[in-house]
Amino acid sequence: MAETKFDLIVVGGGPGGYVAAIRAAQLGKKVALVEREHLGGICLNWGCIPTKALLRSSEIFSLINHAKDFGLEVKGDVNVILPKIVERSRKVAAQLSGGVKHLLKKNKVTVFDAYGTLAGKAGADRKIALTDKAGAAAGELTAPHVILATGARARSVPGMEPDGKLIWTYREAMVPDVMPKSLLVVGSGAIGIEFASFYKTLGADVTVVEMVDRILPAEDEEISAFARKSFEKQGMKILTGAATKSITKGANNVTVTVEQGGKTQAITVDRVILAVGIVGNVENIGLEGTAVKVEKSHVVIDDYCGTGEPGVYAIGDLAGPPWLAHKASHEGVICVEKIFGVGDVHPLDTSNVPGCTYCQPQVASVGLTEAKAKAAGYSVKVGRFPFMGNGKAIALGEPEGLVKTVFDAKTGELLGAHMIGAEVTELIQGYAIARTLESTEAELMHTVFPHPTLSEMMHEAVLDAYGRAIHF
Amino acid sequence: MAETKFDLIVVGGGPGGYVAAIRAAQLGKKVALVEREHLGGICLNWGCIPTKALLRSSEIFSLINHAKDFGLEVKGDVNVILPKIVERSRKVAAQLSGGVKHLLKKNKVTVFDAYGTLAGKAGADRKIALTDKAGAAAGELTAPHVILATGARARSVPGMEPDGKLIWTYREAMVPDVMPKSLLVVGSGAIGIEFASFYKTLGADVTVVEMVDRILPAEDEEISAFARKSFEKQGMKILTGAATKSITKGANNVTVTVEQGGKTQAITVDRVILAVGIVGNVENIGLEGTAVKVEKSHVVIDDYCGTGEPGVYAIGDLAGPPWLAHKASHEGVICVEKIFGVGDVHPLDTSNVPGCTYCQPQVASVGLTEAKAKAAGYSVKVGRFPFMGNGKAIALGEPEGLVKTVFDAKTGELLGAHMIGAEVTELIQGYAIARTLESTEAELMHTVFPHPTLSEMMHEAVLDAYGRAIHF
Repeated sequence: MAETKFDLIVVGGGPGGYVAAIRAAQLGKKVALVEREHLGGICLNWGCIPTKALLRSSEIFSLINHAKDFGLEVKGDVNVILPKIVERSRKVAAQLSGGVKHLLKKNKVTVFDAYGTLAGKAGADRKIALTDKAGAAAGELTAPHVILATGARARSVPGMEPDGKLIWTYREAMVPDVMPKSLLVVGSGAIGIEFASFYKTLGADVTVVEMVDRILPAEDEEISAFARKSFEKQGMKILTGAATKSITKGANNVTVTVEQGGKTQAITVDRVILAVGIVGNVENIGLEGTAVKVEKSHVVIDDYCGTGEPGVYAIGDLAGPPWLAHKASHEGVICVEKIFGVGDVHPLDTSNVPGCTYCQPQVASVGLTEAKAKAAGYSVKVGRFPFMGNGKAIALGEPEGLVKTVFDAKTGELLGAHMIGAEVTELIQGYAIARTLESTEAELMHTVFPHPTLSEMMHEAVLDAYGRAIHF
Repeated sequence: MAETKFDLIVVGGGPGGYVAAIRAAQLGKKVALVEREHLGGICLNWGCIPTKALLRSSEIFSLINHAKDFGLEVKGDVNVILPKIVERSRKVAAQLSGGVKHLLKKNKVTVFDAYGTLAGKAGADRKIALTDKAGAAAGELTAPHVILATGARARSVPGMEPDGKLIWTYREAMVPDVMPKSLLVVGSGAIGIEFASFYKTLGADVTVVEMVDRILPAEDEEISAFARKSFEKQGMKILTGAATKSITKGANNVTVTVEQGGKTQAITVDRVILAVGIVGNVENIGLEGTAVKVEKSHVVIDDYCGTGEPGVYAIGDLAGPPWLAHKASHEGVICVEKIFGVGDVHPLDTSNVPGCTYCQPQVASVGLTEAKAKAAGYSVKVGRFPFMGNGKAIALGEPEGLVKTVFDAKTGELLGAHMIGAEVTELIQGYAIARTLESTEAELMHTVFPHPTLSEMMHEAVLDAYGRAIHF
C-alpha cells in the first residue's frame, strides 16, 4: 500500500502548489501533492503558457504582413491555419505539464491524481480525504501541514452563462474550432485584452465591452489611454462605461444588447468571450467547521499564508489578488520556508509583484500607479519616455510605446513603473529588482543601461522625472 | 559673427560627445559641439543603430522561414531585397541623426560642422582650432573646458588593407551592393559576429577566423562555447586559434590563406569583412606638446575623465575600452557633472557596464566572467539555467540559450551574469541594476519575476547557484 503519512500535503498542482511541493522537497521533507486535473494548473494548461504560444503565432503573422517594410518580399498568400496554431499551443502546454511531472518525480514528491478535501484531524496531523475521478473515496493522507492551492475559476455573468459553443470562457477561446469573423469580448482585464488582441491580429472584427471608464483598469491611467488608442488604431472597437444587458442566441451567432451612457445598442457577433474576472475555488475543500475565513470568494491569510486554522495554509489565486502565477509560486516558497523554519523569510509585498499583459503592444507594470500614489498621500515626481525617442525601437520598427515612472518626491523612492510597447513584459523585471532593493532615483541614474536597447528608456524615464532626460 | 567663447567645447558628436553637450546645456552652460561628419558618430550612423536595423530584417526573414512551425502557411517565395534592407537601415540612421540635431538645437548647443583640434591656450581658456571640410582654417573657439570625444576607427591588418570592394570594413558591410554568396569574417568580437550572423541568416556561406581559441573572447567561456555550437548548427564555419596569412584578389573574389594548428588552407570567398578591433582617433587632434598621455592608441584618463592636462578631458572610445556607446555617454555625464560641480558624481565602474552582441542567438553580460572572478581570487558560486526549462522560451519557439550567474561565495555579491538566447540584450539591464545596487543573492531571490517571461530564468540562475532552482 502507498505511503499516506507526509510532512506536508499540498492540495492543487498549479504554479503555487507545485513550487511549494518542490521547495519543501528541497528541504528534505516528505511531500504529497494532490492534483485533480493537470499538473501545472490553469496557468500552465489553460492560461499563461498556451496563450503565449497563441500570441506568438499572431505576432509572427503580423510581422509577415509587414515584411515589405523590412526589405523582404513575400510573394504568395499567407494563411492562418487555426488548427495548427491551436495544436502547437496544446503541445507547448503538454510539454510543460510533462516537465512539471518530471520535476516532481525528480524531487521525490508523491503525486496523487485525485480531488483533495480537508477532513479533520488525526492527532496533531491534518487529514486530507481523496476522491478519484469517478467520485469514489480514494483513501486519506495525513501531515502536520497542509497548503491549499486550489486556484480560481472564471466568474460568470448572470444571463450569459458560457455554453461552450457561442459563449466562450478562456477555455474555448484557447482552442477555437472555427475562426470567428466577429467577436465580443466582455471584460478588459489582462485575459480579455490578450484574446481581443490575438483574434484582432488574426483578422477578426473585435469589440471589447468594459464596465468601468477605461480598459486594463488595473494599470496606470495613461497606460490605459495609450493602449486604447493603439487598439483603436488597429481597428478594435472599445466600449467603456458599458454593460451587457441581454443576449439572444442564433444558430451560429449571438446578439448582445449593450448599454452605454443610457443608450442601448444591439451587437451581433459570431462568438462572445467572457473575461470578467475570477473567483476562488473555496467550495468543497472542507473549509466548513474550520477557522479558515473566506472573504469575497478568497481565503484570508496572514503575512506567511497562515489561515488562522493551525497547520492549514492557503496560497495563490485561492488566497486572493493579484491573481498571478508568480505571486502564487512566491507565496509557495515563503509559506514552506516559514513552516519549516528556514531563516531570512520575508512576507510578500504585493506592490513589488509585477503584472504583464501580452497583447500587442505589450503592457507591464510594478508598484503604484500615479493616481494610487497620490491617493496614498505621496507627493510624486513623474517621468515619461516615448518609444519614438529610442534608437532600438526605431530600428526594430516598434516606435509605439511609453515608459512611465512614479517617484516619491520626498525620498526619491521608486513607487511604481508602467510600460506599454514592444518587449516590456521582459523589461519590467529591472524595475521589480529596483523596487525590491528599495532603490532611489539616484541609483537608477547611476546604472549603465546597454545601448542600443529598449531598456535605455527605463533610464530616460527616471532621468525625465528629474528634468534630465537626454533624448526627449 | 558667430559666438566663439563657451563654457564647454566638446570635440566629437558621437554618443559620448552629444550627451556631454546636452548634459552641460541642461546645467545652464553655454556649449559648443564640433563634429566633422555625422551627428551621432559612428555608433548612430555606421554602428550600433544601422546594424540593429539590418539584423531586424534578418530576424524577420528567419521567422518567416519558420512560419509553418507557428501554424502559418506562406505560399509563395520569400525574397531578400538587399537594397531595400540597406535603404531601411540608412533611413533609420538618418532619422536618428536628425533627432540628435534636433535635441542639440532644443538644448541650445551650438554645433560646428568642422574638424576640431586643441590649439593652445588663450589666458585661462583652451583654444580649439576649426578646419572646414575643404581643409581650410575656419576660426577658433575658446572655453575653460574641452572634452575630447573623437572616437575610434577600425584596426587594419597589414597586407589585408580594406579596398572598399573585396575587403570590407563595417562600413561596406553595412551597405553591401551585392549579397555575397560566401564571406570570410576576420575577428569574432561583437562586430564580426553580428555581421557573420546577419549574412548567414540571409543565406550566405560564412566562415569566421579568430586568433584566440574561442569566439566572442570577451564573454564567459561557457557562453563562447554555447555560441559556437549554435552558430555551427546554423552552418557557420568557425576557425579558432587561426590567423590569416596572405591574400590573393581575383576579379570578384578573394583567396585567403589561413593557418591553424600549423596547417594552412586556402579559402576562396566573394568578400572578406575585417573586424579585428578598433584604435582610438588620437592623431591630429593637437595632443602634441600637452600633458595628455596616450597608451595603446587611447588617451589615459582618471576617474572623472581628466587627462592630466588642466581643462582637457577625454571620454568614450578615445579613452579606451570597453568600446561601447553607453560607456561613452555615461562618461560624458560624469565628466560634465564633475567639471561643473554637480553633487553625487560617482566614477564609472566598468565592471557594471553591460555588453551586448545582437547576433542570433543574442549574447549579453555584465561583470566578471567565472574565469576572471577566479583569477581575481574569489571563491565563487555559479548558477545556470537553460532556456529549455523556461515556459515562455518554449512558447516563443526559442528553446536555445543559457543564463549563468557568478557569485562571491563569501559575501553573496553578484560578481557577473552571462546570457545567451532570445532577448537577452533587453534582459541584462536587471543584472546591471543589481550590480549597481551591490545586490546579493538573497535580494535577487526575494525579487518576484513575472510569469511567463524569459526573465524568470534570471531568478532561477540565482537560485541554482545556491542549489535551489525550481525548474531544473
